[in-house]
Amino acid sequence: MSERTIRNKVAVVGAGTIPFGELYDKSFEDMMSEAYLNCLESVDKGIDPKEIEACWYANADIVWQRHSTGAKVAETLGLTGIPITRVENACATGSDAFRNACFAVAAGLYDVALVVGCEKMLDTPGGLIGMVDLPASIEYPQPRFFNMFAVTMPSAFGLYGTRHMHVYGTERKHFAMVSVKSHHYGAKNPYSHFRREITVDDVLNAPIISWPLGLYDCCPITDGAAAVIVCKSDIAKKYTDSPVYVLGSGLASQPVCLNLRRDFTTMEPAVWAARQAYEMAGVGPEDIDFAELHDCFSCTELIQYEDLGFCKKGEAKTFVENQEMYIGGKTPCNISGGLKSHGHPIAATGVAQIVELFWQLRNEAPGKGRQVPNAEIGLQQNIGGAGPQVSCINVLANKKM
Amino acid sequence: MSERTIRNKVAVVGAGTIPFGELYDKSFEDMMSEAYLNCLESVDKGIDPKEIEACWYANADIVWQRHSTGAKVAETLGLTGIPITRVENACATGSDAFRNACFAVAAGLYDVALVVGCEKMLDTPGGLIGMVDLPASIEYPQPRFFNMFAVTMPSAFGLYGTRHMHVYGTERKHFAMVSVKSHHYGAKNPYSHFRREITVDDVLNAPIISWPLGLYDCCPITDGAAAVIVCKSDIAKKYTDSPVYVLGSGLASQPVCLNLRRDFTTMEPAVWAARQAYEMAGVGPEDIDFAELHDCFSCTELIQYEDLGFCKKGEAKTFVENQEMYIGGKTPCNISGGLKSHGHPIAATGVAQIVELFWQLRNEAPGKGRQVPNAEIGLQQNIGGAGPQVSCINVLANKKM
Repeated sequence: MSERTIRNKVAVVGAGTIPFGELYDKSFEDMMSEAYLNCLESVDKGIDPKEIEACWYANADIVWQRHSTGAKVAETLGLTGIPITRVENACATGSDAFRNACFAVAAGLYDVALVVGCEKMLDTPGGLIGMVDLPASIEYPQPRFFNMFAVTMPSAFGLYGTRHMHVYGTERKHFAMVSVKSHHYGAKNPYSHFRREITVDDVLNAPIISWPLGLYDCCPITDGAAAVIVCKSDIAKKYTDSPVYVLGSGLASQPVCLNLRRDFTTMEPAVWAARQAYEMAGVGPEDIDFAELHDCFSCTELIQYEDLGFCKKGEAKTFVENQEMYIGGKTPCNISGGLKSHGHPIAATGVAQIVELFWQLRNEAPGKGRQVPNAEIGLQQNIGGAGPQVSCINVLANKKM
Repeated sequence: MSERTIRNKVAVVGAGTIPFGELYDKSFEDMMSEAYLNCLESVDKGIDPKEIEACWYANADIVWQRHSTGAKVAETLGLTGIPITRVENACATGSDAFRNACFAVAAGLYDVALVVGCEKMLDTPGGLIGMVDLPASIEYPQPRFFNMFAVTMPSAFGLYGTRHMHVYGTERKHFAMVSVKSHHYGAKNPYSHFRREITVDDVLNAPIISWPLGLYDCCPITDGAAAVIVCKSDIAKKYTDSPVYVLGSGLASQPVCLNLRRDFTTMEPAVWAARQAYEMAGVGPEDIDFAELHDCFSCTELIQYEDLGFCKKGEAKTFVENQEMYIGGKTPCNISGGLKSHGHPIAATGVAQIVELFWQLRNEAPGKGRQVPNAEIGLQQNIGGAGPQVSCINVLANKKM
């Protein structure tokens, strides 16, 4: 095994989140505080906030609230004086912040660090519409390109959907089956934004947002927050008898411009990030017991089955038809409900995926019928950008490997 | 010495920047590319861009151009496929990005990493006015507080100036002397935004922006970019016979709200960050041969002389009167020209300070009469936020210590 790894060096000993949704009754600070307090309370043997030596803060500032900088965290969580670094990497913000916290702990700088992600998407001006259109109308060739040709989030990812359909014979019903699965589990998750099941017909008959993606192929706009505590593996048992260990991490980017992409049937940053993460973890896709994938759109998740190696290239439609992404299938995916049903508060999403891994790997997934039996290794993935510009992947396990 | 350190583990082997200024003729991508190419060329024994294994990208997105995410760097610098993390921490963005790159290298994850900072401040909508006013008019009690009481950047920092004057008898002329010193050296720096000297009378007679700060007490709005290459110390000699080593790093935040501050004669995050950095580096303020300080305003730099321990509390006025911050004085400060004369392109600033340290510590400061003789240890500092919300400090040396 390479020395160039954080494998087994870092453990997650606490994890908390809040029910995601349209949280008009909660401020940004409310959300962050609640997730943090839930995280503290989740530490089996207890933790004093004073033991937190550093913090990585995930916030994508998606609606320009300027909640950026560590000072917001210092003020809200009472963490004045410690190092607080804000990481932003579009929709991969949460998992990248987690990754950087792990690096610092692995480097020996800090024994205990907090990762907190928070994003207020509603009750604010602009939102995703603002993100795509407002700067685009102002400046620079590339955003203007997006705007001129109306390449919004659904249309950018939709290009990948249509290409996959064209090349591999994937049909809209296959994308629909992904959303149906996500709602099936999301309905059971007390932390989900949408807690109800949907049918393939619901998806196929919903209004088209950007072909081939209808309303139920698209994740919602969600408020949320999540937090986890990581520590040096050596001291993890001080906090819990059931720590979750970090095995590997990967991160990769490609150019923003869609015209520079080589292939619209694959999201290459995910392929590269997966390669890095698997290599560092010393595991392969066949070892992953379950995964939290970035299903900003149903076609994104479907293509990820292939990109992450859960099935062969072009065979995602069979993977879906055989329900291999359900509990009992080959690789249960988005048993949280995923972005589609659990929700997608940008920077909080990746951190919440870590929370879900923490729960699943400790056999304590909240809600009925949602626990993946005997889960030992879980993978968490984010994709970011209008079209896949970046992907970040972390692999965790319930024992050192 | 504690193991909780990056001391001597990481080296800077390349550093490049571009002349700062109002760069209407250069795009964001132009600036970033030029700094990167200059950085590559600065590596004495050469480097293949393929050797760069990861990148930390400093951009504060200060005018909402959405130049965020690693994808922008991947596209502009041709670094597709490698991990690229964007760090943002207000005006401390550049030095915090550097810090995180050092952590990953110290953890053994990467042998060679790039840190690039870039900020387009002009030729864009909003700028600093937008940053302070636009979100403030929209949302949330705290920004609204800033707006309601007209707490802009100069007025937030000006509060510290007036308080220091009241408590310690500091006068406006002392702040002025700081700006005069910065222009004295900045005039000699071919990379400076403003390359001309000014006098104390110029400063005192300039229009007041926010008492006690006049026009020449305030740093300008500047475009710029800078890049450095860090590597494992063990392999530094592969790239240069004169590497610069990282000794220590510190980062600290305090609450955003000014009403939660205890003392307006000191910028506490700087005190805390300095304590961390000195401890990790195993040096004290008396060992610092020169410093690049965050002089967003003249009073900020003056107060930093005390906060970082270059002189005792309340004695900065004497420190200034005795020209201790000049070459030949106790601790030469901002020999680059500082933010005031060299310029302040937010996220690029901290990275450019590292570039200046690299030059000074290798006895190759560009321009005449600007080299600090026999400089062995340098300190670089950023302060961020409207009023000091965060400070990040890195200490570098031209040999392992």
